[in-house]
Amino acid sequence: MSLVSETVREYMQRLASNEPTPGGGSAAAVAGALAAASAAMAANFTVGKKKFGDVQADIERILKVLNTQQQKLLELADADAEAYSQVGAAYGMPRDTDEQKQARQQAIQEALMAAAEVPMAVAEACAAFIGLLPELADKCNPNLISDVGVGAQLGSAALAAAQLNVEVNLALIKDEDYNSQKRRRLSQLATEASEAAEQAIEKVKEAILA
Amino acid sequence: MSLVSETVREYMQRLASNEPTPGGGSAAAVAGALAAASAAMAANFTVGKKKFGDVQADIERILKVLNTQQQKLLELADADAEAYSQVGAAYGMPRDTDEQKQARQQAIQEALMAAAEVPMAVAEACAAFIGLLPELADKCNPNLISDVGVGAQLGSAALAAAQLNVEVNLALIKDEDYNSQKRRRLSQLATEASEAAEQAIEKVKEAILA
Repeated sequence: MSLVSETVREYMQRLASNEPTPGGGSAAAVAGALAAASAAMAANFTVGKKKFGDVQADIERILKVLNTQQQKLLELADADAEAYSQVGAAYGMPRDTDEQKQARQQAIQEALMAAAEVPMAVAEACAAFIGLLPELADKCNPNLISDVGVGAQLGSAALAAAQLNVEVNLALIKDEDYNSQKRRRLSQLATEASEAAEQAIEKVKEAILA
Repeated sequence: MSLVSETVREYMQRLASNEPTPGGGSAAAVAGALAAASAAMAANFTVGKKKFGDVQADIERILKVLNTQQQKLLELADADAEAYSQVGAAYGMPRDTDEQKQARQQAIQEALMAAAEVPMAVAEACAAFIGLLPELADKCNPNLISDVGVGAQLGSAALAAAQLNVEVNLALIKDEDYNSQKRRRLSQLATEASEAAEQAIEKVKEAILA
């Protein structure tokens, strides 16, 4: 059964438990989806309102990205659990002969790379919408601007949580070219997203405290 | 129906929609619950294991707080929606006579204070467990340490998101004593929690990259 088809309460219980899945990568994906949904709420209270007629096309463009990334993040919340099961299966392979040992090692390395790709994709999805939040803060219905701030706070935390989950896998992966490529990309995503998130939060605070 | 009895996917859809609830305060509470559950997972993979026998009592004490606060945060996710409905109801009161106008104003102010108390309680609940995360990072099963980091990242973002939601209400509340009392408490919680979260994240990064 899909994890995101569980109730919020059941999902939390299973996350907290000593079952192997869902883990932190899945939690990061759910947090990213929460962030995208909060920002989408601000957009949805702006589209179709005459008062905000000038910005309709911009808001619709932003909303499309928010919806796509929210959807993707929910899929990644499930994909993370699946990828982790594969890592467990690889570690469980027989290692009686040298041939078996080699096959097991290769399967483990492949499974770890596949598992690293899930939080990588979570980080990419978060960065893809966080970059639009300063513009959304400028253009959305001002009654909903705090929800853009919630999106920026939760979105950048989700990205940072995803980054920790990539690093956990990289620590076990022996292909240094692969590792440094992932680290470069993560660092780029984190820098861009944290600048955009800070900008958005600044705009939100100015608007609320004005 | 309780919002947290919806599936994760339904909750996200409703959050993103232009329905009045759930709003950003509820999203902050759900993010706080996600954070507590992630950290609880690290604790649950530590209790009852001989290898970590020395720290059983400490881990059990921390786990108890994590479980209590996670439960509270899920209740607050629902309470936020309820409080918001009350604000809407107060704004909808008749205002034909001076007496009605005064009664409406008073009802609005009371409903806004009740609505501010929910994200205040979210911030309190987050701070209550974030303060324990550096100790959990030191003592938990090291295979799960990244989940303590996820708890710290998501927990402090949830607290910051709750803070924005308190501020949105304070901006409409006319009792300046009430407002400055809430702002002082929020600033105290945010400072304590962000120090603890940074400490925990530093420990997690050192452990992962070691």
